[in-house]
Amino acid sequence: MQQGQMAYDRAITVFSPDGRLFQVEYAREAVKKGSTALGIKFKDGVALISEKKVRSRLVEKTSLEKIQLIDDRVAAVTSGLVADARVLIDFARISDQQEKVTYGSLMNIENLVKRVADQMQQYTQYGGVRPYGVSIIFAGLDSIGPRLFDCDPAGTINEYKCVSIGAGKDQVTAYLEKEYKENLSEDEAIRMGIAALKSAVADESSMKEPEIASIKMGETFHVFTSEEVSKYLN
Amino acid sequence: MQQGQMAYDRAITVFSPDGRLFQVEYAREAVKKGSTALGIKFKDGVALISEKKVRSRLVEKTSLEKIQLIDDRVAAVTSGLVADARVLIDFARISDQQEKVTYGSLMNIENLVKRVADQMQQYTQYGGVRPYGVSIIFAGLDSIGPRLFDCDPAGTINEYKCVSIGAGKDQVTAYLEKEYKENLSEDEAIRMGIAALKSAVADESSMKEPEIASIKMGETFHVFTSEEVSKYLN
Amino acid sequence: MQQGQMAYDRAITVFSPDGRLFQVEYAREAVKKGSTALGIKFKDGVALISEKKVRSRLVEKTSLEKIQLIDDRVAAVTSGLVADARVLIDFARISDQQEKVTYGSLMNIENLVKRVADQMQQYTQYGGVRPYGVSIIFAGLDSIGPRLFDCDPAGTINEYKCVSIGAGKDQVTAYLEKEYKENLSEDEAIRMGIAALKSAVADESSMKEPEIASIKMGETFHVFTSEEVSKYLN
Amino acid sequence: MQQGQMAYDRAITVFSPDGRLFQVEYAREAVKKGSTALGIKFKDGVALISEKKVRSRLVEKTSLEKIQLIDDRVAAVTSGLVADARVLIDFARISDQQEKVTYGSLMNIENLVKRVADQMQQYTQYGGVRPYGVSIIFAGLDSIGPRLFDCDPAGTINEYKCVSIGAGKDQVTAYLEKEYKENLSEDEAIRMGIAALKSAVADESSMKEPEIASIKMGETFHVFTSEEVSKYLN
Amino acid sequence: MQQGQMAYDRAITVFSPDGRLFQVEYAREAVKKGSTALGIKFKDGVALISEKKVRSRLVEKTSLEKIQLIDDRVAAVTSGLVADARVLIDFARISDQQEKVTYGSLMNIENLVKRVADQMQQYTQYGGVRPYGVSIIFAGLDSIGPRLFDCDPAGTINEYKCVSIGAGKDQVTAYLEKEYKENLSEDEAIRMGIAALKSAVADESSMKEPEIASIKMGETFHVFTSEEVSKYLN
Amino acid sequence: MQQGQMAYDRAITVFSPDGRLFQVEYAREAVKKGSTALGIKFKDGVALISEKKVRSRLVEKTSLEKIQLIDDRVAAVTSGLVADARVLIDFARISDQQEKVTYGSLMNIENLVKRVADQMQQYTQYGGVRPYGVSIIFAGLDSIGPRLFDCDPAGTINEYKCVSIGAGKDQVTAYLEKEYKENLSEDEAIRMGIAALKSAVADESSMKEPEIASIKMGETFHVFTSEEVSKYLN
Amino acid sequence: MQQGQMAYDRAITVFSPDGRLFQVEYAREAVKKGSTALGIKFKDGVALISEKKVRSRLVEKTSLEKIQLIDDRVAAVTSGLVADARVLIDFARISDQQEKVTYGSLMNIENLVKRVADQMQQYTQYGGVRPYGVSIIFAGLDSIGPRLFDCDPAGTINEYKCVSIGAGKDQVTAYLEKEYKENLSEDEAIRMGIAALKSAVADESSMKEPEIASIKMGETFHVFTSEEVSKYLN
Repeated sequence: MQQGQMAYDRAITVFSPDGRLFQVEYAREAVKKGSTALGIKFKDGVALISEKKVRSRLVEKTSLEKIQLIDDRVAAVTSGLVADARVLIDFARISDQQEKVTYGSLMNIENLVKRVADQMQQYTQYGGVRPYGVSIIFAGLDSIGPRLFDCDPAGTINEYKCVSIGAGKDQVTAYLEKEYKENLSEDEAIRMGIAALKSAVADESSMKEPEIASIKMGETFHVFTSEEVSKYLN
Repeated sequence: MQQGQMAYDRAITVFSPDGRLFQVEYAREAVKKGSTALGIKFKDGVALISEKKVRSRLVEKTSLEKIQLIDDRVAAVTSGLVADARVLIDFARISDQQEKVTYGSLMNIENLVKRVADQMQQYTQYGGVRPYGVSIIFAGLDSIGPRLFDCDPAGTINEYKCVSIGAGKDQVTAYLEKEYKENLSEDEAIRMGIAALKSAVADESSMKEPEIASIKMGETFHVFTSEEVSKYLN
Repeated sequence: MQQGQMAYDRAITVFSPDGRLFQVEYAREAVKKGSTALGIKFKDGVALISEKKVRSRLVEKTSLEKIQLIDDRVAAVTSGLVADARVLIDFARISDQQEKVTYGSLMNIENLVKRVADQMQQYTQYGGVRPYGVSIIFAGLDSIGPRLFDCDPAGTINEYKCVSIGAGKDQVTAYLEKEYKENLSEDEAIRMGIAALKSAVADESSMKEPEIASIKMGETFHVFTSEEVSKYLN
Repeated sequence: MQQGQMAYDRAITVFSPDGRLFQVEYAREAVKKGSTALGIKFKDGVALISEKKVRSRLVEKTSLEKIQLIDDRVAAVTSGLVADARVLIDFARISDQQEKVTYGSLMNIENLVKRVADQMQQYTQYGGVRPYGVSIIFAGLDSIGPRLFDCDPAGTINEYKCVSIGAGKDQVTAYLEKEYKENLSEDEAIRMGIAALKSAVADESSMKEPEIASIKMGETFHVFTSEEVSKYLN
Repeated sequence: MQQGQMAYDRAITVFSPDGRLFQVEYAREAVKKGSTALGIKFKDGVALISEKKVRSRLVEKTSLEKIQLIDDRVAAVTSGLVADARVLIDFARISDQQEKVTYGSLMNIENLVKRVADQMQQYTQYGGVRPYGVSIIFAGLDSIGPRLFDCDPAGTINEYKCVSIGAGKDQVTAYLEKEYKENLSEDEAIRMGIAALKSAVADESSMKEPEIASIKMGETFHVFTSEEVSKYLN
Repeated sequence: MQQGQMAYDRAITVFSPDGRLFQVEYAREAVKKGSTALGIKFKDGVALISEKKVRSRLVEKTSLEKIQLIDDRVAAVTSGLVADARVLIDFARISDQQEKVTYGSLMNIENLVKRVADQMQQYTQYGGVRPYGVSIIFAGLDSIGPRLFDCDPAGTINEYKCVSIGAGKDQVTAYLEKEYKENLSEDEAIRMGIAALKSAVADESSMKEPEIASIKMGETFHVFTSEEVSKYLN
Repeated sequence: MQQGQMAYDRAITVFSPDGRLFQVEYAREAVKKGSTALGIKFKDGVALISEKKVRSRLVEKTSLEKIQLIDDRVAAVTSGLVADARVLIDFARISDQQEKVTYGSLMNIENLVKRVADQMQQYTQYGGVRPYGVSIIFAGLDSIGPRLFDCDPAGTINEYKCVSIGAGKDQVTAYLEKEYKENLSEDEAIRMGIAALKSAVADESSMKEPEIASIKMGETFHVFTSEEVSKYLN
């Protein structure tokens, strides 16, 4: 690291001379240390798949779950600082419920993602706080059909056919860039997602029992049981 | 970079000895990394045209849209930090709707642009925040006729016959400075805009399907379909 | 620049050992980069004249207007940071209208200028903000007769027979110091002002179509049309 | 320690270039100096066991108690800065009682732990405060059955079959990782916990009279008397 | 300047090791650059006299007036930063009027001076602001008789028989220290004051038309006309 | 002191790399300069004893009193910064009275001590303040029986059979660690306390007339008169 | 001054490694530059005596008065920064009157002194302010009898038989330590006080007309006239 850089990267609210926000870039490093996950659309729905790092047999498995339901038609998977992620997921749930209480219907998924991303953007512009060290994939169904977004520490959001976050993001993306086709069946999509994750995750044990959840048109989000997951592992 | 400069460019609220605000200049660097877009007036209306960077085939195209409608007679295109841009566009929409609710009619376009620019100026004068890393072109129709403004990170606004922002701004401007004529037809203006963008954008792929939107006297803003766009590409 | 100076000029709220406020002096440098303008009193009124920098033929001329009406008996011309100037002009207009709503009559011009100058002074005394990088000439008519003030980044105001701001301030002042006489006719005053501006402005193009506005006893402020301006240019 | 590190670890709200929050890591060092404690689930309940450092015979033993009841179905044991721990335990009790007053029933244990952890997370993201220098084990019974969580200075929470905090955490965890079996009886679990603590605590005196508390299905939390504890010590 | 000093003089709220407040001392330097003025008591009243710096014939003379009426029995003359002085004079006028509205009578002069001085003292004790760069002489009549005070950037006030502020303060004071007698007539006092000012002011032009104002028992404050002033100039 | 330390010990809200809070440790140094005092329980009550430093015969003795009644069943003795101690004792008295007003009965002593300690803990966690430079011994009677606590600058509290604070704390504690027996009579306890203090206090004069106060079951706190004290001094 | 010290003495809210608050110590230096004053009790009352520095014959003597009445049974004399002293004396007067309005009787003198001292203590503990650079002697009569306190920049208060502040404090105290006897008559006490002051004040002129005020049982505070003072000067 050069001296010039150090002068700009310790104060969140300043630009470097070439227009970069170092603190946001460093927060992305925290995400790059996180577990790998992906979202993938199929013909009539969208699935989330995440590796599951079993650090110790003493940890309850439910405690390792990376996929979180926001409501019964939207789920999210996160990578990065665990506590930051929890706070943002709760923020999403509360925003969603407030909308329901106020307007009688749940939020459009894009608006829900924007609400979370706006919160994250503010932490990159105001002094006295640090950015959130987290990326989030949101997946779900709304009146437009299956939706799949990611949101990064800068508060930037994009919509995808498939998308990955975490340590193995680059390998997963390279795999899907090559293999992904539209109009996959749910089955094909999940098998492709698992193959993509396997190509990226060095630690085999964390792919022994990955997490899977999906939603299909006309249904609610379904988190796969161990039995359902195991069908996809050979 | 000289030591003298470093002393002044890390604290947003101070002037340098020669009266410059370095943080604002650095925010402009963030804009210079953004995608290139332009606005161009024609006889009875105004058009916006933007390159569309397709970074990956896995990204949904709607997610790359740079042109945003504020309401049915005003649209904007942005360049720079994507999350900052979203926040400012939402700010514009909310200001616009509040005016409508309060006074029963939409804001004059110039006032709408000033409202956004005042917000941006404040972030260059108060401590504890950074400037917005974004430039915006606003185009639309009001009682005066077709209007076309830009607004930069300093909060400066100008009205133009044609204007460009983003990485290719200088080349586009040089092209239009030479070629632009008043009283172009809509067709001529769009063809000239595309030619100008092509002269500036190195990556050919991002001009494969540029975004186009325009508004004509007596009509509302129209975002071109792929078919409509493709008519202009040869 | 000496090391001793650097220790004091980066924090707005401190005096240097010799009792100077460097940030205010640096803000004046921003004004010295601005376009040149002047105000000049004549027998029964007062006029404002400004060079008009036409940076590009693509910019709408109305967008370059430096002379702004506050209400129909007061106008202002500014030099320095464009966004700061807009914010202060709006501040003046709102103060003026609030007075009218509250007391049924417009503010005395001197009080209006003081209101703006007090705002500017506060930004030189409180931490967490920078001074406004702008000087303003206010001209108008009130019960005392024609009035002509300037206000600088320190918030200092003075009343003048004629006054100049911007890059050419020193030359314009030297010219008028020598030539100005009281009881000029409006015509004579405007011709003298244009001559003074021409003596100061290096870039001839920006004197091709200067801005002129004036007010006479019993009338309201009049912004000159291109035809009216052109009468004075030979 | 390298110079590069020192630049980032004195300001809580910034990330280091590799995405770490040094202040949170240093707060964990405060925890590593604390007394060793553990939580362990058994067939129909969960137990907490803590060493008891008797620094002086002049201290009242009740004052050394590390195990604290939140209400009659949840208890906690802490390690790290003693005053920080007291403040957080009180925070948990008040949150719990507010829930009871508001909704007529006590909080779900997981929600109670999240409430505390959210408080701890905020102290890692906002300026002007330091993180809490404390880790907490929460144990209890709710409608799901026996629950066992820990919460660290980052605000991260996990659910466990057994878990340890404090100076001897690594040795205790290694011991339990090897020995722990599910469906232990309460008796077996407590004996295993004491053996694990003994393997980790160098100062024998602090294992002379360890603290033990447990809860079984259908009962409330029971803090062991000296007599009950002594049964387990040979 | 020594390094030891620099460590203490850039932060207003700290004492130096020898108990000094450097920022207050530096603010006094700003006063030492101001125009010279004095107050002088005579048998049945008190007068204020100030040099009048005519920087340019283009400035309106009223704009150079240093003597300001607070109400018809109190006047003030200031030296130092012009905008700071205006803000404090307005503060005095508003305090005075508020008292009148609240209690039906104007403030005792000493209380009025204290109100201003308390304001100035606060700016020497709180962070985030700088001291006022101004000294003020207040003169007037109240139930005690003629009163004459000064107030400096520290917020210190004293009552005098005669007193001076500004660049020539030391010479004027030395002159009056030697010459002043009690029970002068108004005429004698004004002549002595002008002589004292002349002994201190290097630039003769600024003594061509000094400002004079005085108040006598049973009368209100009177600002001298040019004719009245000229009687005293030979 | 090493450079590494200096980097962490000037900002209260940060941990050092080894998990220490230097500002709290430095505040304890202020306590180590204070006068020595102790609390000691006996069979049916508790006593406080303090040396009394007579710095000058011109000081009123009442002004030197270190033992303060909170109410008639609780007293406290402090060591460290005198003004900080007064503020905290007043805080304890007000908390105590508020409880009485609100609930009709005085606070449980443990809760009273916690209220004060929580206040002290907050000053170790928030920016912009320093910790209190004081340790306090609280002694009294409540429904549990005689109580004896200390509270240090970290906000840590412990309950004791006997405890000491101030410059001689280590010697007093060593003495009592060796000599203290439970079920002492009040007389024996006070004699032992005085002997312990004498073993620790170098300046004999400050043990000429120590302060003593005690409370017995069924009675209120009694501050010993000079005559009562003198009985114990040979 | 050593480098180690400089690291701690520029930020008010931190302790130095040896538990000192440098800013408070530096504020005491400001007091040591102040005029010398003393308070002295006699048989049935208490007196205040202060040197009177006559810097110039042009200053009104009333303006130099150091002894201030708080109400008719309490007076104070200050040393240090004059503006700080005025603010604190006004604070005392207002606290006193508020008590009277609220409870129908004036404050107990000790409580009045504590109110002022608490204010001073806060300015030693919170960031963004500096301590008051002032020491105050309060003297008066209340139901206990004659009272005499001092209060220093740390907010520490003590009660005395006699006490001194300002530049000559050490010599005055040494003198009185040797000479003071209880049950002096008012006359003896004042003569002793003047002798003590004379022993300490180098500049004879400031002892030409010292200030004296006293209060006796059953009477109100009496400020001595010049004639009364002169009786004590030979």
